[in-house]
Amino acid sequence: MAEKLLSEVEGYQLLHRFGIPAPPHRIVERESDAVRAAEEIGYPVVMKIISPQIVHKSDVGGVITGIANEGGAKEAFRTIMKNAAAHMPDAEIRGILVEKQMPPGLEVLIGGKTDPAFGKVITFGMGGTLVEFLKDVSLRVLPLTKEEIREMVRDIRGYQLIQGFRGESPKDEEALVNIIAAMADGFVQDSQILEFDLNPVILYESGAAVVDARIIVDGGETARRPVSLEVDPEIFYPESIAVVGASTNPTKVGYAVFRNLLSFRGELYPVNPKRAEIFGRKVYPSMGDIPGTVDMAVIAVPASVVPGVMEEAGRKGVRLAVIITAGFRESGERGRELEEEVMRIARKHGIRVVGPNCLGIMLPHKEINSTFTPVSPKPGHIAFISQSGAIITTVVDWSLPEEIGFSAVISVGNQADLGFEHYLKFVEQDPDTRSITLYIEEIKDGWSFINSVREVAITKPVVAVKSGASEKGRKAASSHTGSLAGTYDVYMAAFKQAGVIPVESLREAFHLAELLASEGYPEGKRAMVITSAGGFAVLSSDYAETYGIEMADIPEAMLEELNAFLPPDWSRANPMDIIGDAGADRYARVFDVMIKYQDAWDIAFVIGVPSALMNPGHLANEIVRFSRNTRKMVVGCVLGGDSMKSGMRILRMCYIPNFSELEDAFKAVGSIIEVRTGRAPGFRPIELDYRCPAGRQA
Amino acid sequence: MAEKLLSEVEGYQLLHRFGIPAPPHRIVERESDAVRAAEEIGYPVVMKIISPQIVHKSDVGGVITGIANEGGAKEAFRTIMKNAAAHMPDAEIRGILVEKQMPPGLEVLIGGKTDPAFGKVITFGMGGTLVEFLKDVSLRVLPLTKEEIREMVRDIRGYQLIQGFRGESPKDEEALVNIIAAMADGFVQDSQILEFDLNPVILYESGAAVVDARIIVDGGETARRPVSLEVDPEIFYPESIAVVGASTNPTKVGYAVFRNLLSFRGELYPVNPKRAEIFGRKVYPSMGDIPGTVDMAVIAVPASVVPGVMEEAGRKGVRLAVIITAGFRESGERGRELEEEVMRIARKHGIRVVGPNCLGIMLPHKEINSTFTPVSPKPGHIAFISQSGAIITTVVDWSLPEEIGFSAVISVGNQADLGFEHYLKFVEQDPDTRSITLYIEEIKDGWSFINSVREVAITKPVVAVKSGASEKGRKAASSHTGSLAGTYDVYMAAFKQAGVIPVESLREAFHLAELLASEGYPEGKRAMVITSAGGFAVLSSDYAETYGIEMADIPEAMLEELNAFLPPDWSRANPMDIIGDAGADRYARVFDVMIKYQDAWDIAFVIGVPSALMNPGHLANEIVRFSRNTRKMVVGCVLGGDSMKSGMRILRMCYIPNFSELEDAFKAVGSIIEVRTGRAPGFRPIELDYRCPAGRQA
Repeated sequence: MAEKLLSEVEGYQLLHRFGIPAPPHRIVERESDAVRAAEEIGYPVVMKIISPQIVHKSDVGGVITGIANEGGAKEAFRTIMKNAAAHMPDAEIRGILVEKQMPPGLEVLIGGKTDPAFGKVITFGMGGTLVEFLKDVSLRVLPLTKEEIREMVRDIRGYQLIQGFRGESPKDEEALVNIIAAMADGFVQDSQILEFDLNPVILYESGAAVVDARIIVDGGETARRPVSLEVDPEIFYPESIAVVGASTNPTKVGYAVFRNLLSFRGELYPVNPKRAEIFGRKVYPSMGDIPGTVDMAVIAVPASVVPGVMEEAGRKGVRLAVIITAGFRESGERGRELEEEVMRIARKHGIRVVGPNCLGIMLPHKEINSTFTPVSPKPGHIAFISQSGAIITTVVDWSLPEEIGFSAVISVGNQADLGFEHYLKFVEQDPDTRSITLYIEEIKDGWSFINSVREVAITKPVVAVKSGASEKGRKAASSHTGSLAGTYDVYMAAFKQAGVIPVESLREAFHLAELLASEGYPEGKRAMVITSAGGFAVLSSDYAETYGIEMADIPEAMLEELNAFLPPDWSRANPMDIIGDAGADRYARVFDVMIKYQDAWDIAFVIGVPSALMNPGHLANEIVRFSRNTRKMVVGCVLGGDSMKSGMRILRMCYIPNFSELEDAFKAVGSIIEVRTGRAPGFRPIELDYRCPAGRQA
Repeated sequence: MAEKLLSEVEGYQLLHRFGIPAPPHRIVERESDAVRAAEEIGYPVVMKIISPQIVHKSDVGGVITGIANEGGAKEAFRTIMKNAAAHMPDAEIRGILVEKQMPPGLEVLIGGKTDPAFGKVITFGMGGTLVEFLKDVSLRVLPLTKEEIREMVRDIRGYQLIQGFRGESPKDEEALVNIIAAMADGFVQDSQILEFDLNPVILYESGAAVVDARIIVDGGETARRPVSLEVDPEIFYPESIAVVGASTNPTKVGYAVFRNLLSFRGELYPVNPKRAEIFGRKVYPSMGDIPGTVDMAVIAVPASVVPGVMEEAGRKGVRLAVIITAGFRESGERGRELEEEVMRIARKHGIRVVGPNCLGIMLPHKEINSTFTPVSPKPGHIAFISQSGAIITTVVDWSLPEEIGFSAVISVGNQADLGFEHYLKFVEQDPDTRSITLYIEEIKDGWSFINSVREVAITKPVVAVKSGASEKGRKAASSHTGSLAGTYDVYMAAFKQAGVIPVESLREAFHLAELLASEGYPEGKRAMVITSAGGFAVLSSDYAETYGIEMADIPEAMLEELNAFLPPDWSRANPMDIIGDAGADRYARVFDVMIKYQDAWDIAFVIGVPSALMNPGHLANEIVRFSRNTRKMVVGCVLGGDSMKSGMRILRMCYIPNFSELEDAFKAVGSIIEVRTGRAPGFRPIELDYRCPAGRQA
């Protein structure tokens, strides 16, 4: 790429083309023209040398500010010319820029850069030395609507200064939004612009002006390759599977894969030229020898053999190949060539490819486990798509005692063909999937990812763990303002724009996914808390504040109804501390009142703790009944250990989320609210086929 | 309290007394004196009206700045006098303050206030409108050493501005530290000062000046009542216990208390005038009827009867009374009087009191459980002191399946006599206690608490959950800068000063307490990570950065030793990804090298994940051997579910901390480092009586 920095004047011309106001300016070559220009523009003015050779104008005395009158203008012109001649006698002088000196105002900056994964992004932040060190910057992936730009402006802490801090008059927010919008549009449409910094942009009570524009362009074209997200979901539901490389040797991957697929209800064919029988089943020397059709091939043979197997698969009419084999792109140049060869064959035959270099896929509801993991997950409603095989193995192992189930577990591997964006579209239509968890290291095509996930997240909430945050530190060291944000920040901005909920840890991801799979998105952020333990009531208020959840006020009429039966020393406020001697019946009566006044709240946290007077099973059943009788989000916080297990288990069986650590509950709900606030009313859960214990439900 | 705001001149006089520079100034009553004063001081000057009635001087035109010469001085004097006469004709004018107008510089603020719990505290932050809204303030409880003040100054983000941000010259930090130190000393010694704001204090390249001083004093004395922390620890190890109010009715507290004490190995006496036998034991009508001595009395009778029981206890020579009964100070005026009566009797007889209105105390190693909880905790090495009974019940219930044990569990109740500070001193000397967890709602005597906990925390790490953080928001609404910090911030500052580790959740508290009980404090923050899973290696780097842990460089010689036996595609850097096919043996060889090079690191995180090639029991034993053979901190992160349980259990039995969520491990270690950094080399664990499975240790 031939990067080129535009001159100041070229920069102003570009801004003009985009309809963005720059300070009035003229280019002059003679002293008398300089004076005339200054008079036309109006004093005070600034003069700057124009020369392709002089990049750092100030260093050679090529900039003079605060020119107040004709005498000053004449002297400034002569001084600049003299300085230039003295310092850089060979420089080609193209004239002097005479520019209106803008009055002081609130300085902000607008930057743009081209991210390797997500393409063009835009940043906005406060300018000036004092706040620059605070790195108070917001970032978005383009394109954006004007409404989104307004939100971006309001996203930084320094927005208080724009609103008018401590008696200062408010600045012209609309003018700012218009400049950002115009620049963003121009940046998106002009593929030549790679990067820009408008710094400072000065805001006034009325209007705004871009005072310095640094714009880097490229001669080459950086057109976006459109990727089709079309994948026939039926290919993931095969009626017949061939395991190529099936083995009787327990140390081989082909053994574990075949063993894990034994529960598959369709036709299962082991393929291995060196064996006759595996687990009592006839082995075929090649796919061509299989009598019936083969929908899906799971391939666990050495890399060099894979192209031949793919040709075979093509002839057999295979629609989906899961290539577990490693030794492709990830292992260097020869592997990359091999991967390209495999993909050429796949495209020729219309085979879609999972992997290579992956663990495989699992669809527990279909009893498909094409991986070599030691254990298989339980069926459930969470889809997990991961860029790390070891993390899948660990999560599946952990999920069993935690009783977390999955609708799909997909290891994406090298993503030679199918990538995150395709799997997202697949699980979007999958009826068993109700929420989605992603483990992402790096996204190849950010634009396709955003487009895919943005749609999916409307009906199926998406939670993501993005590793590589510590790149942030390294990237932030870059010198210009556009890089105040590193790659990780671009991911976070993209997630936010697409409605993906970012989390830091895997446990948090799955607790959140479970909550979303059962309760969906809340309608608002007004919470009520019911507890019999004063200590947890206080902690609830703390956590609510920390995680951006509002404690709803109890309406007067509701308060009266509660006062009628609660003991006189109950808290009479939210959090509702209904006193340590509360049993499940007292909770139930509170629930009834809450159902009646459900317009007053969006989320209920029910905290139950061990006590001699509390039957946890009874409490859990009342929570189930409560949840069934309201359209609002009900979150169980049945805390404690073995003595509360019966209650926790009932909630789990009835798909009521329960958190055993109070903070987790508030953090999870808070994460959802943060992403959903101000968005369209979202997902509400479809009625589940609840498998509550018989006769337990009210 | 009769609060009084000092006048500007009185304020300057006070500063002068403390040796703090104020701008040169004179008080004048006549125009000619004003001119002379201005000439002596040197132009430019500021003039301000002095009148006890005129609080808002600017509002009445009582302040004129930028007075540059004699003419200006005359005019200013006249204008101010005229304005005052026009706006406030009845005000008593005591003259005009002529003051040197200080040149601009970096503005900071110094504030002080008197906290209800912790006494005098001091705040420091950046001044000026632009940064004020960022609330960049540090806070400390007084008194402080100069070194601590320097640390306080460096604690705020704006410290970069003092150092000289982006080419600006550095400011006179020493002058600033001297002003804060002088003001802090004066504030501590002068009991009349309640509150002050020095805002702004202007910093220059050389020197600093306080330009505005707002000081509130009080006529009354606020002397600190010294509290003795002396408690004979022997009173907590009784040889005989009487349960007053022991009952056969399972719904009564006196039943549960007596049942829980049945395992006590000393003499146990039920006392109840209405019963003859309880659980087959002879019941005494009163303590006086007990033949032997009674060391401790657990009292569970109605509140009104407690004073009589206390007199009885006094006559019997009881040393410690655990008053479970509620209905005292917490229930209003009559209860408060009753509590005072009980305390008068206790003091008369020299009885120390736990409670009233508490759950009681548990010492699992002594088989003492004087509470009415449904279950008893396992013996262990964590002391838990809590202001909430329900939280104790919940934590104990949760601790059993988690296999977390306790040395002491203490419910403090109303703290009529013994409080946090006494219990801390008790568990400090308790040989079974190795780390301490506190649940705090409100501390009564912050000063005693700090003094007690600061000493204890040197040898026994202290972790605290402080509830009531959401007060922060409310208090922050207060109008003057001294209140930029709310009560919660004072607690956090006090914790930091005393070396207490603050955490947000109970789970985090106990995971941290377990880590501290086994590994103590690390010697530094350089970590090494060993894993066979690439995904977790990336996440480790992220978490390390988030929680302030440094990834150590692998020394060249160590790298060579590792290269000699690790597969060629291992990461060759820290985090050490030793590749997915690693078994316990490969880990063990890495441990051997790490032991050899243990000077290069302070903390090792060993991440084990499920895999066909991994025997988790073998890995755990190697981790145990590793830990035993180094003085550095070794943290297990054996992740997964049932397939890894055998390994997790071995670690637990051998007192090696293990985290089942990777982020928790880094967060816990990070919290310790944050509190310990820059402090004296701390606690190292005493050798434990390790109860590893026989024959398992290397």
